[in-house]
Amino acid sequence: MRKKHNERQAALTNRTRIRVRFSEVDAMQIVWHGEYVRYFEDGRQAFGREYGFDYCDFFDNGFTTPIVELNVQYKHPLTFGEEAIVETRYIATEAAKIVFDYTVYRAADMSVAATGSSIQVFINRDRNELELNTPLFYRRWKEKWGIL
Amino acid sequence: MRKKHNERQAALTNRTRIRVRFSEVDAMQIVWHGEYVRYFEDGRQAFGREYGFDYCDFFDNGFTTPIVELNVQYKHPLTFGEEAIVETRYIATEAAKIVFDYTVYRAADMSVAATGSSIQVFINRDRNELELNTPLFYRRWKEKWGIL
Amino acid sequence: MRKKHNERQAALTNRTRIRVRFSEVDAMQIVWHGEYVRYFEDGRQAFGREYGFDYCDFFDNGFTTPIVELNVQYKHPLTFGEEAIVETRYIATEAAKIVFDYTVYRAADMSVAATGSSIQVFINRDRNELELNTPLFYRRWKEKWGIL
Amino acid sequence: MRKKHNERQAALTNRTRIRVRFSEVDAMQIVWHGEYVRYFEDGRQAFGREYGFDYCDFFDNGFTTPIVELNVQYKHPLTFGEEAIVETRYIATEAAKIVFDYTVYRAADMSVAATGSSIQVFINRDRNELELNTPLFYRRWKEKWGIL
Repeated sequence: MRKKHNERQAALTNRTRIRVRFSEVDAMQIVWHGEYVRYFEDGRQAFGREYGFDYCDFFDNGFTTPIVELNVQYKHPLTFGEEAIVETRYIATEAAKIVFDYTVYRAADMSVAATGSSIQVFINRDRNELELNTPLFYRRWKEKWGIL
Repeated sequence: MRKKHNERQAALTNRTRIRVRFSEVDAMQIVWHGEYVRYFEDGRQAFGREYGFDYCDFFDNGFTTPIVELNVQYKHPLTFGEEAIVETRYIATEAAKIVFDYTVYRAADMSVAATGSSIQVFINRDRNELELNTPLFYRRWKEKWGIL
Repeated sequence: MRKKHNERQAALTNRTRIRVRFSEVDAMQIVWHGEYVRYFEDGRQAFGREYGFDYCDFFDNGFTTPIVELNVQYKHPLTFGEEAIVETRYIATEAAKIVFDYTVYRAADMSVAATGSSIQVFINRDRNELELNTPLFYRRWKEKWGIL
Repeated sequence: MRKKHNERQAALTNRTRIRVRFSEVDAMQIVWHGEYVRYFEDGRQAFGREYGFDYCDFFDNGFTTPIVELNVQYKHPLTFGEEAIVETRYIATEAAKIVFDYTVYRAADMSVAATGSSIQVFINRDRNELELNTPLFYRRWKEKWGIL
């Protein structure tokens, strides 16, 4: 890690490896900036597998968890064929939200390609409206992992 | 049209205009070959709007219409910023299928960028199996447009 | 516009119309959040056409203009077949940067689907490094449109 | 493998594992049909790594290798979170072409999700025209692997 970037304290962290696809590279020979949104999603999926944080469970418990805020900071572009490490950091919050920070590293030298964050909320599927209280099953998941 | 390519007789034809996006261009400075699948879908959507061929109607009548076969022939690549015409031709068949042929033209000179075809079938949502008989509402749609 | 969201003063504004594609809708039946990055790019392309702000000119003048920061706030999801208006607002700055704000409206009622912003910098292609001074041709483009 | 599908004799075969992304699933809860074009490309990339079949070498030897024909047959749809095996089979030909057949298997039971094929040609970058003779470096690669 060449340079330390700002980091919030993470309660749980997952790292997963991806490989840049030819179709993700743009006419400038670098990964198109929109593809990092997919890389972050790869990170969330891998986080979910490691920590039993399953969107299907959310759905079965009556909630969808749409993203309401997304930020990406681009540092050094990835290119075709490179491998990257997506680090997904779960940021604890008392609000009824799911907050992740991300760092995408070039695997070869662990230099930072991009950083970012996302916020998800809970939508109550019955009432089709924002859930302001932390759902029970989510609180239990947090307790299981010693969060808060 | 510089050169005539093989064409099956079409019962109905739609033409719609699209513009190549930066994100669709690959490292070779041409539209990535997979994007033409999207262009064909743009064509089907435009066809549906012109002829009242609505996938939501299919769904409401108890069917989904997955693609089971797709072919693309690439002729001359499109590049960033170019406009293209997607021609979608409905090919009549007595089978319980939906068959389309496509030609993507470069708008500037109507040269052929790509051709292709797709076949869709009807899946009965209740039984979750292939429907072998032409659904009634589809037969009515064909009659309305004087097809067979 | 149902509700006024925070807006910085824009020097120039473009509005362009898009239609949600089937392939852009996710398993939750709404536009996948990453597709808005494409909608913003559609907006920048349309802005470029209206105001003669051409990325090929930048390239020919020796610069690339990568995005270094991107933010999206999601308000009300778009669904399949809906039309949207992408509003792209050029935000003047004295720095050697290109700053845009975006609002994506559902065309049917002009409710806000998403907002966002992007920052681009100039990379000097000869030296392959960040350009700190506003390039001459960019300053001329700004003067032409009465900016600063 | 539940059922044998038609198969041409392959000279070389690679298998690589992929995982279905949330963004690849469509409103029908299945992988959008266009994503299989990406899966085939994943397969070609993995094939290239196993057999030293490197597109950058082609480029450095003065050629690009665009796809001129692509076919996909859809059998059983993949869904979110599933893992798949992409099998990429190199089909020997005396023509100046690169021919691959593909089978995408659901990893859980090795049932066939999709099959397909692609044809690539050689474009001479100097003359910007189709190369009709097999390039020397490609012939050497074939000899190395005992093909024809």
